[in-house]
Amino acid sequence: MSSSSKLLDQGVDAFASLPGIGRKTALRLALHMLRQPKNDVQFFTESIKGMRNDTQFCKRCHNISETEICEICNNKKRSENKTICVVEDMRDIIAIENTQQYFGNYHVLGGHISPIDGIGPTDLNIDSLVQRVQDENIKEVIFALNSTMEGDTTSFYIFRRMMNLSVKTSSIARGIPIGDELEYADEITLGRSLLNRIPFDSSL
Amino acid sequence: MSSSSKLLDQGVDAFASLPGIGRKTALRLALHMLRQPKNDVQFFTESIKGMRNDTQFCKRCHNISETEICEICNNKKRSENKTICVVEDMRDIIAIENTQQYFGNYHVLGGHISPIDGIGPTDLNIDSLVQRVQDENIKEVIFALNSTMEGDTTSFYIFRRMMNLSVKTSSIARGIPIGDELEYADEITLGRSLLNRIPFDSSL
Repeated sequence: MSSSSKLLDQGVDAFASLPGIGRKTALRLALHMLRQPKNDVQFFTESIKGMRNDTQFCKRCHNISETEICEICNNKKRSENKTICVVEDMRDIIAIENTQQYFGNYHVLGGHISPIDGIGPTDLNIDSLVQRVQDENIKEVIFALNSTMEGDTTSFYIFRRMMNLSVKTSSIARGIPIGDELEYADEITLGRSLLNRIPFDSSL
Repeated sequence: MSSSSKLLDQGVDAFASLPGIGRKTALRLALHMLRQPKNDVQFFTESIKGMRNDTQFCKRCHNISETEICEICNNKKRSENKTICVVEDMRDIIAIENTQQYFGNYHVLGGHISPIDGIGPTDLNIDSLVQRVQDENIKEVIFALNSTMEGDTTSFYIFRRMMNLSVKTSSIARGIPIGDELEYADEITLGRSLLNRIPFDSSL
């Protein structure tokens, strides 16, 4: 698929380089851009360039940040909780922040252990996590990794690395999502939710 | 949904402003951009800015172009055919060009007549089409508009406008798509394909 304009092709190629955007969608987006005022297109490209050039990763928790240490790490009240929530990706921080149920610090691993993809423990921010637990005198580490084989493996690896430290470790609860019907739940989730049942009054 | 970084939010907003891109996808795209080398992001934004700023619409056929008159219009061999294919959108030109079955010129209307959306004949490039047919001594006008009520209405309106000119008008064939099974075809298409049947040997 190619048009009579090399510049249009270039714009289509740019959009098509994004993950999950095929060539037909890329063409639709490029033509949309052509119909926008020049100022809007300028604002669009500047927003993306600014985001890429003026952000960095927090030296402490590896979250995205505009300063060396991110806002969450700089928040003294949060650090007083002496709790670190371990997540795979900074996207998970946004999701957890949106719940407004967590007031401690975070640590972004940058992925999970996955031998098939050639990702071992040294490719993740695990050493710096163990270091932080010691340096910051952390009381509890909460594993909030994806509920997959790789996520569990990664949690278990970090758990083993911390066995000699006097830190409590916990994992977010696995179970039936709120609002779901039992008959559609898979057996493993349902089985686990029975095993890990909790006193009735605290489930409300 | 908001992150701890205003710049990231801004990038997400930029992507979310694109048609068909929701906030979750926008976040995924923004985080993808954050992981790319700065040069790649620069190339991405420059491609889009360049496409918007350095293209224009061909003065003759209203196709996208990098010069006043587009490549297709500038091609003398094509103009010798004295044929104009009328399309709604420049996307249709790309689709037709990809078939490699058409060697004449084009004319982009910029949409179709649609009273519901407040688009009348004067909002489309119809006057310039009628003018071209006279000025360029065109022999045939092919309607390649969408096979919808609005497309048909637009074709008919232009047909009426040209009734007094000595120009042949034709429409691209409607029928069963190649590779489709009859039982899944809608009745109107099937009925039309029977009415407009063609000699067997020319259907191959």
